Amino acid sequence: MSDRPDPGAVLDRLTAELGAASVRPGADASPDLFVDETLKAKPVAPAVVVTPSSTAEVAAVVRLAAELGVPVTARGAGTGLSGACIPEPDGILVSFERMAALLELDEANQVAVVQPGLTLAELDAATAAVGLVYPVFPGTLAASLGGNVATNAGGMRAVKYGVTRNQVLGLEAVLGTGEVVHTGGRFVKSTSGYDLTQLIVGSEGTLALVTEATLRLHPRLAHTASILTPFASVDEVAEVVPRIVASGVQPMILEYIDRATMTGLLRMNELTLGVPDDVMAATEAHLIVVLEGRDAGRLEVDVADVATQLAEAGAHDVYVLPSGQGADLLAARESAFWMVKAAGADDVIDMVVPRSRIPEYLRGAQLLARTHGSKVFGCGHAGDGNIHFSVYEPDTARRSRLLSAIFAMGHDMGGAVSGEHGLGRTKKGYYGRLVEPASLALQRRIKAAFDPAGILNPGCIFPDD
Amino acid sequence: MSDRPDPGAVLDRLTAELGAASVRPGADASPDLFVDETLKAKPVAPAVVVTPSSTAEVAAVVRLAAELGVPVTARGAGTGLSGACIPEPDGILVSFERMAALLELDEANQVAVVQPGLTLAELDAATAAVGLVYPVFPGTLAASLGGNVATNAGGMRAVKYGVTRNQVLGLEAVLGTGEVVHTGGRFVKSTSGYDLTQLIVGSEGTLALVTEATLRLHPRLAHTASILTPFASVDEVAEVVPRIVASGVQPMILEYIDRATMTGLLRMNELTLGVPDDVMAATEAHLIVVLEGRDAGRLEVDVADVATQLAEAGAHDVYVLPSGQGADLLAARESAFWMVKAAGADDVIDMVVPRSRIPEYLRGAQLLARTHGSKVFGCGHAGDGNIHFSVYEPDTARRSRLLSAIFAMGHDMGGAVSGEHGLGRTKKGYYGRLVEPASLALQRRIKAAFDPAGILNPGCIFPDD
Repeated sequence: MSDRPDPGAVLDRLTAELGAASVRPGADASPDLFVDETLKAKPVAPAVVVTPSSTAEVAAVVRLAAELGVPVTARGAGTGLSGACIPEPDGILVSFERMAALLELDEANQVAVVQPGLTLAELDAATAAVGLVYPVFPGTLAASLGGNVATNAGGMRAVKYGVTRNQVLGLEAVLGTGEVVHTGGRFVKSTSGYDLTQLIVGSEGTLALVTEATLRLHPRLAHTASILTPFASVDEVAEVVPRIVASGVQPMILEYIDRATMTGLLRMNELTLGVPDDVMAATEAHLIVVLEGRDAGRLEVDVADVATQLAEAGAHDVYVLPSGQGADLLAARESAFWMVKAAGADDVIDMVVPRSRIPEYLRGAQLLARTHGSKVFGCGHAGDGNIHFSVYEPDTARRSRLLSAIFAMGHDMGGAVSGEHGLGRTKKGYYGRLVEPASLALQRRIKAAFDPAGILNPGCIFPDD
Repeated sequence: MSDRPDPGAVLDRLTAELGAASVRPGADASPDLFVDETLKAKPVAPAVVVTPSSTAEVAAVVRLAAELGVPVTARGAGTGLSGACIPEPDGILVSFERMAALLELDEANQVAVVQPGLTLAELDAATAAVGLVYPVFPGTLAASLGGNVATNAGGMRAVKYGVTRNQVLGLEAVLGTGEVVHTGGRFVKSTSGYDLTQLIVGSEGTLALVTEATLRLHPRLAHTASILTPFASVDEVAEVVPRIVASGVQPMILEYIDRATMTGLLRMNELTLGVPDDVMAATEAHLIVVLEGRDAGRLEVDVADVATQLAEAGAHDVYVLPSGQGADLLAARESAFWMVKAAGADDVIDMVVPRSRIPEYLRGAQLLARTHGSKVFGCGHAGDGNIHFSVYEPDTARRSRLLSAIFAMGHDMGGAVSGEHGLGRTKKGYYGRLVEPASLALQRRIKAAFDPAGILNPGCIFPDD
C-alpha cells in the first residue's frame, strides 16, 4: 500500500529496537525462508526478516509494525501446505528459529511448555525419555510446535488423541496491538472467561503470535500392532470403520488409501507386503488399522478381535503385519505427500466430511474430476472423515473450477474446506464462497478485536474483497 | 436504565412477533424460573418470559431486544451455581423448555444433535439404548445441554473424557445481532476459519444463544469398578494421582474427598463402607478411583494393578467396592452439593489449579479460612486439579475477603477462578481483580464483536466498572 513506510525505514526502526543480530533485510536472507511446502507456491521476499529471542522482542516487533502499518507473518519450520507462513512482499517475517526451547517437561502435571520454534522431533525425543508422548503426528516431525498450533495440525493419530487443539492447554501470545496475554494453564478444564486458547489455535497467525504453548502429554504405550486390509469397495471401509470405533477398542490409526496411491507408495518405498497382484487389482480401498496398548497380551487379543470384524465386513484378506513391516507401511503412508509432489501433483486438498459420507464424497470427487478431464487420487483419515486428495490438473482456471465443485459438494454434505492444512493463502477463496456471510463478518470483527491495525498475516484466511 | 422502553411495550412487541402462547409478563411466571442453584441467590423477575419453539423465534426475540436495548438472558434447567441464568429485572428471559428435542442420534458418526432444553437424563437414556454415552456427568442429570454448553460443564468423568467443550463439535447459535450462525459439524477436526464453537462454549450466554448443538458420543463400556482409599495426608493423594494417570489405565474418575465431607456424605446417605472408625479418624483425604472397561476380566486386572499402586503409595487400606456400593458412593459424592446446601454453606467455589499444586492449595485455603475465622471443606476432581470448597462464613464482607484471598493464592499457583461452575454473576468480581487487563479488554472487544448492542446477559463474566 502506498502509505506504508519504505522497507529501509522499517529495517532501521527494527534494528534500533532489537539490535542488528536479530534483524536483516529480506534480500540478505535465504529464500528457503520465504515459502512453505504448498505445491506450486513461489517464495516471496519480505522487507525484513526478524529472528527474535524473547517474547519482549516479539512484542516490540508487533508494536512497531502496528505503528507503521506493516504486515507481520510468523514462521516456524515452513512445513505448512496452505502458504500461511509466506510473507507479504513489503512485510516483516518473524522467524522463530531462536525461540525453540523446551522450557519445561512437567511430569506431575503431564505437560510440556514449549517455545514456538521447537520441532515435533525434539519434543518427541524429550517426552520418550520420560515415558510420555505428545500425540500429534502430522506428516513430518520436522514441523514446529508454533506452526502446529497456528494450523491446528492433525495427522493419523487424531482418531484416538484428537488434534493439536485438544492438546493445547495454554498460550502466551502477542496480540496485534503488541500486548502480551496469557491464556489457560496447566489444567484441562476452566470456565473463567472466554477460551482465548482455542480461538488462537488454528487462526494461522492472523490473531496473535504465539510465543509459548503449554501442551498436554499422554502416557506412551509400549506396544503397537498394524493391520492392512484390502477391500473391494470404499463402502465396505465406510461401514466397518464406525463399528471398530464403537467397539471401544480405541484404534490409534484408521487410514484409508486408494489403490493408485497404495501402488505408488509401495513402489516408491520399495515395500512388499505380501498382497498378491490379483487382490491388489480387485481392491478399491486399503484400510490400515493400528492399535496400541500397554500390555502385549491384551493387544494381541484386540488385534484378533479387529481382524475378525474386518474379515466379517468383507475384506479380501486381513494382513496382521510384523512390527517392522507395520512401521514401514506407516512411514510409506507419511511419505504420500512427497510422492505426489514428485509425481507433479498440482495441488493437495484435505476436506473433512462426516465419516458416514466418505464413500459419497470420494465417488463425487472422482466424477467431478472426470467431467473436468482431471485426475484426483486419495488417502486419508477414515476414522475422522478427513480425506486428502492429490489433484492433477495443470490448467489453473480448470483446476480452480474443479476444486470449487469438490469443495461445494463436500460442504453440502456437512463438511469443511480443510481438516488440518488450513486455509492460508491458497484455500481462502474457496472458503469465502462457502462460508455464511454472518459468520465471515463475525470472524472479521473478531480479527479486528485482536488486531485492530490489521497487520497480522493479512493475506490469510479471509477472502480477498 | 432510563432509556429502556417500559416493560409493557417490550411485552407487546414480543407478543406481536411470536404470539401470546410464547410470551408472558415476568409477573405471571413461576419464581422458580428466576433463580438457579447458586447459594443465597435471590430470584429476579424479568419484564418478560419468552418460551420460543424455534430458532427463528429466538432470532426474532434477540433482534427485537437489540433494537430496543433490552437485556436477554437464556435459561435451561436452572441447575447452575454462579447465577448466569438469573435475568435482569427489566430484561427478557428466554426459557428453552419448548426447545428440548433430541433432533438426531447419528450412530454412524457417533454424534447427537440436540436442542438446548434437552436434559442430560433424557440424552443418557437415548444413548444407552444404542450402546453409546455422552460422557459429561456434572452434579445432576436434570441439567440441560444448553446450560452445559454455556457453562462448559465438567463433572467427575472429565479426567478420562474431558469436559463439555471436548464433546461439542458444532453449534447453531443466535448472535446478539439476531443473526443465526452455524459452526463446526459432524467431524472432530477442522482448520477452516476461527473456532467459533469453542469460543461460544463456556461463554455463559454473553456471546450468543445456542439453539442447537452437535455432540460427540463415545462407546458405552459395560463394566465399572470402584476403589475407595483413605490416606493419612493429601500429599500422598497428590503423589499417587499422576502415577495412576501415567500408567495408562485411563481412570474414569479420580475424586478426592476430605474427612469432614466424607463423614457428612456417609451419614446423610446412610452409607457404611466398612471403613473402621480409627481409620476414618486418621484420614485426611479419601481417594475414589473408578475404572471402566469393555471386558470384565481386564477390568479385574486393572483394579488389582491400581490397588497395588494405592497400597504402595501409603494408603491406610484399599477397599474395592462391590458394584452396588460403588454406585452408592458415587451417588453420595454427587449429593455433596445438596449436603452443603442443607448444612447452610454460604458459598461454593471450584478453582482449578495444576494437579501437582493441590496439597499446597488445600493447606493454603485452610490456613486462610482459619485466619478469617471461617470454615471451608472440600472435595474435588483430583485427576484434573478442580477443587470444590464449601465456604461457611455468614458475614458478607469477611466472606468476600476470604474468597479474594483464596482466589489470589490459587491464581498465583497457576490456577483459574472456576473449573466448571463459571463466573456468572457471583464470581465475576473476583475474576476481574485477577485477570490481565489486556486479556479483559480483548474479551470485551470479542463480546462487542458478537453482541454490539451489549444485550446478551450483560451482568455476567465481566466485572462491574
